[in-house]
Amino acid sequence: MNLALDLAWQGWGRVHPNPLVGAVVLAGGVVVGEGWHAEFGDRHAEPVALDRAGEKARGATLIVTLEPCDHRGKQPPCTDAIVRAGVRRVVAAMADPNPEASGGAARLGSLGLEVQVGAAREAAAAQNAIFLHRFRNQSRPFVALKLATSLDGRIADSAGHSRWISGEPARNYVHWLRAGFDAIGVGGRTVRLDDPRLSVRGSVTPRVAPRRVIFDAGADLDPKLMLISTARETPTTLVTAPEARADPVDRLTAAGVSVVRAASLEEGLRALRAEGVSSLLVEGGGRLAGALLGSGLVDRYYWVQSPLWLGDRGVPATAGLPSDPIARAERWAVVERRALGGDTLLVLDRR
Amino acid sequence: MNLALDLAWQGWGRVHPNPLVGAVVLAGGVVVGEGWHAEFGDRHAEPVALDRAGEKARGATLIVTLEPCDHRGKQPPCTDAIVRAGVRRVVAAMADPNPEASGGAARLGSLGLEVQVGAAREAAAAQNAIFLHRFRNQSRPFVALKLATSLDGRIADSAGHSRWISGEPARNYVHWLRAGFDAIGVGGRTVRLDDPRLSVRGSVTPRVAPRRVIFDAGADLDPKLMLISTARETPTTLVTAPEARADPVDRLTAAGVSVVRAASLEEGLRALRAEGVSSLLVEGGGRLAGALLGSGLVDRYYWVQSPLWLGDRGVPATAGLPSDPIARAERWAVVERRALGGDTLLVLDRR
Repeated sequence: MNLALDLAWQGWGRVHPNPLVGAVVLAGGVVVGEGWHAEFGDRHAEPVALDRAGEKARGATLIVTLEPCDHRGKQPPCTDAIVRAGVRRVVAAMADPNPEASGGAARLGSLGLEVQVGAAREAAAAQNAIFLHRFRNQSRPFVALKLATSLDGRIADSAGHSRWISGEPARNYVHWLRAGFDAIGVGGRTVRLDDPRLSVRGSVTPRVAPRRVIFDAGADLDPKLMLISTARETPTTLVTAPEARADPVDRLTAAGVSVVRAASLEEGLRALRAEGVSSLLVEGGGRLAGALLGSGLVDRYYWVQSPLWLGDRGVPATAGLPSDPIARAERWAVVERRALGGDTLLVLDRR
Repeated sequence: MNLALDLAWQGWGRVHPNPLVGAVVLAGGVVVGEGWHAEFGDRHAEPVALDRAGEKARGATLIVTLEPCDHRGKQPPCTDAIVRAGVRRVVAAMADPNPEASGGAARLGSLGLEVQVGAAREAAAAQNAIFLHRFRNQSRPFVALKLATSLDGRIADSAGHSRWISGEPARNYVHWLRAGFDAIGVGGRTVRLDDPRLSVRGSVTPRVAPRRVIFDAGADLDPKLMLISTARETPTTLVTAPEARADPVDRLTAAGVSVVRAASLEEGLRALRAEGVSSLLVEGGGRLAGALLGSGLVDRYYWVQSPLWLGDRGVPATAGLPSDPIARAERWAVVERRALGGDTLLVLDRR
């Protein structure tokens, strides 16, 4: 199953809004076929793996990260391919939450195959968190926070500089990460200070370039800023307050920025979801991070920890976060821990 | 070598001031003997492993985490045992920095054995950092900082409570960690607030219980506090300012606390070293941590990261830390990353 999960990542940035899926065919304990869902609309992981296995799939075990579909969409049902290949046993990491595609396990079972669903539910659910969120919560996007901090939790030094806290492997990882999200969000202060591009310049070119979203109550953004001046090339949305002055808003609209007026972050996120943004990666600054966390609107935290100290006057990673007593503080769950060069990545999910 | 390094940890808390050493005898790619230095004054890792290998050591390879000694101390020279066992090849992770014991590699080479030193210098040096520090720096103890923080870098909630930020596996780890240090240090504010015992109640019982060290400029400590009231059972030192009033100091002295007056942290640490403290584990609070870090007096940071948020009014892990621009900030090196239950351990060394 670990191999199947690894294979599934090959679809990151390319298969959305479909789930990531990896599949392995095992015959006599030997891998005889590997497959993954590689492109939206293209073949599913199971038939790819079964084709590679060929005749060896007869009587074999199919390991797959999601319950095989029993549904004719852009592709024929995977259940048909599985039965045709003569597979004897199917092990799926988790059930398919999509009501249109589910039912594959039941159908295969009724046809006499040995079927096990839920073999690696936690890992598979963490991998497909964005996909699962779409079914569980229709009121806002899946919101992930990504921050690169010093050992003392600063995202910039006392002069406001954040280039570069993290090293190149971590920055490459962030480009890879962005490729899998519908939108990348930042606060207005970060835009004014860093003038970021928020483009994806890594090993994966996303099928659709992520929309850029700026959260700024005052709408006070110079049209020469990178995100504004390129708004006609890559969709850019400003989430601003209902009372933001018309002048700057009109200037931004004229530059091609779509503007959402929202009374709260929650309302802003609801509007984004209504416009088709089902996943949002927020990359700072500290005030936006603190406000989202404080409102319970963050589902996942990608924490890049860089091994340096920036001191008390550095910019805190999460400003304005309300303080709970320890006993009442929410405990999150670590879903990934690893090195990114000299930096460390910790990925945590709100439970 | 990884196995040898793992075995060496068995001596943690027991062999000090000797180094941790593990040894493995390999014959035809198979482990035929394992050994470690288990108790101060007792047998070294190499003869233990060679004895277990018996006749199989003839012509075999000895893998050891430190250059074998060529010195008659409490034990006969390991070089003799190695030659007697008929070992053909010796691979040592690093050279022995102890001028009295070194020279083993050269002697074995001159006797016709194949000798390689430096096979895992970095990992071995990190494991024996305390031992190495004793030779490299005689002016102060090896100083490690251990803090358990929330995701937003707080060591206590807004009410000052820190029990419990981390979970049981992490707290057990800290007890194991304490066993390997000569002394455990805390700031006076932490003593007054938490009234800790700083005892070792874990899987390893240290050969010598670590001294407790309190850093408090005012010497303003109630004799009923745990550390003071037990000062006759476990040695306890107060590091205070030259201008601390005589009254409280006399009260503490009468309770059995040894008092050091020092004009700076550096001077206090020098005095501790002169009294035989060659390693100090500082467990907070944030002001002491910030002051030590700011003065460049911390060699290692054991960072226990707990997956909760404590908010802006929580107590910061490192208060008073001066702010450097990113380009000038010191970069540390991660020597260990792993899970401690739901918490995460990151160990970093100042380079």
